[in-house]
Amino acid sequence: MAVYTPCSAEDIATFLTQYDVGKLIMAKGIAEGVQNSNYLIETDRNRFILTLYESRTDVDDLPYFHQLTAHLAEKGLPVPAAIPNFSSAVVNELCGRPASLIQFLTGVSVSEPTLAHCEAVGAVMAKLQMSGADFPQARRNSLSISNWQSTTDYLNSKLDEIEPGLQKLVEAAVADCAQHWPTDLPFGAIHADLFPDNVLFAGNRVTGLIDFYFACSDFYAYDFAVLLNSWAFSSDGTHYYADRAEALLKGYEAVRRFTPDERKSMNLLCKGASLRFLLTRAYDWINTPPTALVTRKDPIAYARRLRWFQANTAAL
Amino acid sequence: MAVYTPCSAEDIATFLTQYDVGKLIMAKGIAEGVQNSNYLIETDRNRFILTLYESRTDVDDLPYFHQLTAHLAEKGLPVPAAIPNFSSAVVNELCGRPASLIQFLTGVSVSEPTLAHCEAVGAVMAKLQMSGADFPQARRNSLSISNWQSTTDYLNSKLDEIEPGLQKLVEAAVADCAQHWPTDLPFGAIHADLFPDNVLFAGNRVTGLIDFYFACSDFYAYDFAVLLNSWAFSSDGTHYYADRAEALLKGYEAVRRFTPDERKSMNLLCKGASLRFLLTRAYDWINTPPTALVTRKDPIAYARRLRWFQANTAAL
Repeated sequence: MAVYTPCSAEDIATFLTQYDVGKLIMAKGIAEGVQNSNYLIETDRNRFILTLYESRTDVDDLPYFHQLTAHLAEKGLPVPAAIPNFSSAVVNELCGRPASLIQFLTGVSVSEPTLAHCEAVGAVMAKLQMSGADFPQARRNSLSISNWQSTTDYLNSKLDEIEPGLQKLVEAAVADCAQHWPTDLPFGAIHADLFPDNVLFAGNRVTGLIDFYFACSDFYAYDFAVLLNSWAFSSDGTHYYADRAEALLKGYEAVRRFTPDERKSMNLLCKGASLRFLLTRAYDWINTPPTALVTRKDPIAYARRLRWFQANTAAL
Repeated sequence: MAVYTPCSAEDIATFLTQYDVGKLIMAKGIAEGVQNSNYLIETDRNRFILTLYESRTDVDDLPYFHQLTAHLAEKGLPVPAAIPNFSSAVVNELCGRPASLIQFLTGVSVSEPTLAHCEAVGAVMAKLQMSGADFPQARRNSLSISNWQSTTDYLNSKLDEIEPGLQKLVEAAVADCAQHWPTDLPFGAIHADLFPDNVLFAGNRVTGLIDFYFACSDFYAYDFAVLLNSWAFSSDGTHYYADRAEALLKGYEAVRRFTPDERKSMNLLCKGASLRFLLTRAYDWINTPPTALVTRKDPIAYARRLRWFQANTAAL
């Protein structure tokens, strides 16, 4: 939630001369996304998001992300496509960083989704997955089981510094996932991070799906497990909203029905999704000084979700 | 350069129901200003800046700032006026903070001003001062000599931790200012912080003067001394651009000519302006942990300007 690389208007104006987009008239650094720097810019023709990729984004993955969003945008999904420059390149350089000019989508993210929002996002997730079914490229999910194991080994007893008992909870859950993780569920390109802040709405209509920088090839049902984790709980994880979960499912299944195997695995996939966010947050928690002015996201909010899925194996 | 108070779109949409501005369709936290939180928002009718005042802005000063900008906007200056709500109040509450909805001005700030930019900003500063001449309210400049003395006493030997010799330089310069500071120059409402990032341009035309939260009643020539400090040097203070200084003066004097007394005092006022930024930066430098992800602005950049004005008493 910060602008890590400051760029002057002159730098941005020069960068734009590589594109057929008009002349710069406004540029504001915006607090969007957690790992890259973003500017909302306006030319005499249109508005755009300008993204500078910081060190946490692997440049080698950018073609996958951009070709996937181009593929989805072509199929009519409200996904921001990257704009090619005069040489047809979508990743160029600005202020020493790889940078892309991206279509601007209007809309607002909701913090307390209504059931109508949940139904809409469930449906759009299924549409996204179906539209990506013929996308020919693959990207391994780098934040899945092997990452959870190595991060747990790395954090080790530091987990108990965050909250006593956390290490035991995490180790047991990672072992459970490693042992029982399914191998043969329907899979393809998924968003893998479709939190409320990555969905833009106008009223109840989805106008934007953004931040595809965790997109990968994984189980469709795992994508939905991330949705349940991020939309069906209060953000601190203390409250589960069964009605939101129902609405997410209703929306999703209006487009694509889960198979019996997917339903059978859903509880485990949900625990895995809780672990994924618990562990990246715990890693950041340990490695971000408490004095830093970036908000550290509380890992315990996801430990609560993990415990909830452990206690409610039959839900959904 | 951060959003200190996070607000949800729902909070902002509810806040907007107090105003005749339409419905919220977009909201982005922006990295603008150094002491408040700012959102660029869009309704179905217009764009606005939404400012949440953080602890460094004294709420008691807000009426002065807003009435001054309203006064200047009425006279045609490109100054963002605060929007009154249905009860005619311009300061209301949002997410536990005093907050104002402010007119959005387009344009970009320049980092390397051309001579045309300098001439334009010199002229607009003089117009701003002349348009404020009949503004009936006063606000003491809280960042003038008595503040420099108390901050120097507070920082004390810590100044030498930033750079050996800095304490001696600062103490001597503060004493010099305290002894020789003029008392009878033309004065009135001034911006007092008209740095390049507070001026928006379309080409060479000034489209916006923003961030009036240091505005106060002080010498017109002191406002110009701040302009010389911030526009006529490279940002690190190692390089003085005589041609930019000439252009600033040419623009200013096309609107209002300095008196012989103002010219005589200009060198001292410039040293005072160097001190003002040197000291607030040194204070923040000492009080911001180096690990914090906000950029600490280098106080030495203004020590260099101070030394330059000490060595070049006859310039201008």
